[in-house]
Amino acid sequence: MFIPKKNIIVGRNPVVEALKQHLTIDKILVSKKASGEIVNEIKQLARANNVPVQYVPIEKINSLTNIQHQGIVAFKSAVRYFNLQHVIDFVVAKGETPLFLILDGVTDVRNIGAIARTAVCCGAQAIIIPDKGVGALNEDAVKTSAGALEQIHICRVNSLMIAVDELRLNGISVFASEMTATTKLYNLNLNIPCAIVMGSEEKGVYPALMKICENTFHIPMANNFESLNVSVATGMILYEAMKQRK
Amino acid sequence: MFIPKKNIIVGRNPVVEALKQHLTIDKILVSKKASGEIVNEIKQLARANNVPVQYVPIEKINSLTNIQHQGIVAFKSAVRYFNLQHVIDFVVAKGETPLFLILDGVTDVRNIGAIARTAVCCGAQAIIIPDKGVGALNEDAVKTSAGALEQIHICRVNSLMIAVDELRLNGISVFASEMTATTKLYNLNLNIPCAIVMGSEEKGVYPALMKICENTFHIPMANNFESLNVSVATGMILYEAMKQRK
Repeated sequence: MFIPKKNIIVGRNPVVEALKQHLTIDKILVSKKASGEIVNEIKQLARANNVPVQYVPIEKINSLTNIQHQGIVAFKSAVRYFNLQHVIDFVVAKGETPLFLILDGVTDVRNIGAIARTAVCCGAQAIIIPDKGVGALNEDAVKTSAGALEQIHICRVNSLMIAVDELRLNGISVFASEMTATTKLYNLNLNIPCAIVMGSEEKGVYPALMKICENTFHIPMANNFESLNVSVATGMILYEAMKQRK
Repeated sequence: MFIPKKNIIVGRNPVVEALKQHLTIDKILVSKKASGEIVNEIKQLARANNVPVQYVPIEKINSLTNIQHQGIVAFKSAVRYFNLQHVIDFVVAKGETPLFLILDGVTDVRNIGAIARTAVCCGAQAIIIPDKGVGALNEDAVKTSAGALEQIHICRVNSLMIAVDELRLNGISVFASEMTATTKLYNLNLNIPCAIVMGSEEKGVYPALMKICENTFHIPMANNFESLNVSVATGMILYEAMKQRK
């Protein structure tokens, strides 16, 4: 028996409506053969809303639904995504000092869930993730985060480079964690509006992104054994920030 | 076809020899029907070496090996266990200030592996675990720890209460992490010989154990959302200790 998935929006007009209403959508699947005015409209709206579009064989879409789909389905997100500028304005208006995380290459949604838990505990207000290369923040991710993903602003952006520019234009300093940096974490002033870039455990922060950061820092280690888990490292950094801000 | 397991020691005399040579053994299985002088000797040696003994139906042992087992098999450990007093003496003789972790109720071996990574990075010298209720620190656990379990002293003890007594007799202060404690982590002097008790995420530290600790402390949180993962919390505590000791 065919079991339709609950979290999908099926067909051209429903997907257009969802995009116009800014519903949070993880991704849109478009049949490779789909074409026409409305398909172009969907592509444009998806771009404006930072929603990734994937082109797939029609059979892929057939396997997801038995409703008339016209070559288009969208996956609703379990998490609400926020516009970065709106979040900055909201946090500043509340009289808080921005403390944001930027996840560059942290692709495992369980790691993102674990980081969200720590971020909420430590008073960070937003997590910025790229719209590509990251798994859907689905119900499993929400569960792993013990609900934290619903208590923090998640900003999904088209380009982390542009997001860093936007942060700096708003007076938010951007720092990157990097093993070979000379500044030690506890010598970094985290008592100012700031965002921290965390790279993946394997590759670290993307070099071009590192270049446009205001400063880099490292967590001083007692041993040469440098292998902190990314969520543990994030915990240390946010603990230091929280302590400086008390 | 029967595939014998590589990590088991089979038969009464081989197990006695392994115990006498202080090979690291995770546990010993004894058939419920086994008896005699040598079985008593094994029980005594196991007790002296803090090796847990389980009494099982003979069929359980039959399923593990087709060698003549005489109702006794032992599982070799992937990790070497150390005697707590020996570790204290070793660390002090090296001129280091002891920084130990005591894991009370952290039973998931992957969590222990993750904590070991952080502990090595932060210069902690030992992790003390109880011999009951913790899964075997097998090759998977070593892998999860990125090799850290082989770079830190793991002390497996019969009773955490007795271990705390032993630490205090050696001039090592014992502190427990507890959400409702009044002392804040950064007001705790971690620049002295000390051991930190970490409880499970669900139950916290066992009350009788908490009572014999010198002090309790909490990690101040920015929000009411108190749900730090145990390995992230350990990371924050060891970061604070490392910073104070620099």
